[in-house]
Amino acid sequence: MDASCPERGILEHVTSRWGVLVLIELHGGRTRRFSELRRSIGIVTEKMLTQTLRTLERDGFVLRRALPVIPPHVTYSLTPLGEEAASRVRSLSEWTATHAQEVLAARESYDASASGAA
Amino acid sequence: MDASCPERGILEHVTSRWGVLVLIELHGGRTRRFSELRRSIGIVTEKMLTQTLRTLERDGFVLRRALPVIPPHVTYSLTPLGEEAASRVRSLSEWTATHAQEVLAARESYDASASGAA
Repeated sequence: MDASCPERGILEHVTSRWGVLVLIELHGGRTRRFSELRRSIGIVTEKMLTQTLRTLERDGFVLRRALPVIPPHVTYSLTPLGEEAASRVRSLSEWTATHAQEVLAARESYDASASGAA
Repeated sequence: MDASCPERGILEHVTSRWGVLVLIELHGGRTRRFSELRRSIGIVTEKMLTQTLRTLERDGFVLRRALPVIPPHVTYSLTPLGEEAASRVRSLSEWTATHAQEVLAARESYDASASGAA
């Protein structure tokens, strides 16, 4: 994959720190308000979440709907394209959850041999 | 996924900017020297690639082998656990490549409506 090719930029968006979590959170036809997304993702700042949602919207993954009411009511969901990307991100996330214990064991073993070598 | 749970940290490693590309490059039983990885990934700095490889090695995804020769000969490959993670990352990457044109079209449409609204 060439550094300048568009695929690489798209891959960076769907694997970005907050992009991953937005895709997982909206996967499966879910609709969320900004405040709900922010709460479920946790430590993300308002600015970073806004930027992440805008990037994913521009890429055609996220659908932003602003209802013409007062006060403003804005919701986010995935487009069919976004659902496809999200299902692959989710597969990776589920695999990670299933294998977390193996990773933690690998870290312990790595740290033990590193401290032994020091 | 709670912000403090280990799965989230592991997911961040396998979806990190350079982690993604290392996993894709080593996927399928390939063995690479540091310089080969660096060349194929392109714009990564030596420091960032070193750090990425160490993180993935500590997580049990990457196997680092240093042959006892002079000059030193160090190679990197994936463990079975790393191959499993890499196959999911690769699936996402292939999907991205297949749908790049749709994303580029979405961006054009987004930018056109954004400039129309300005």
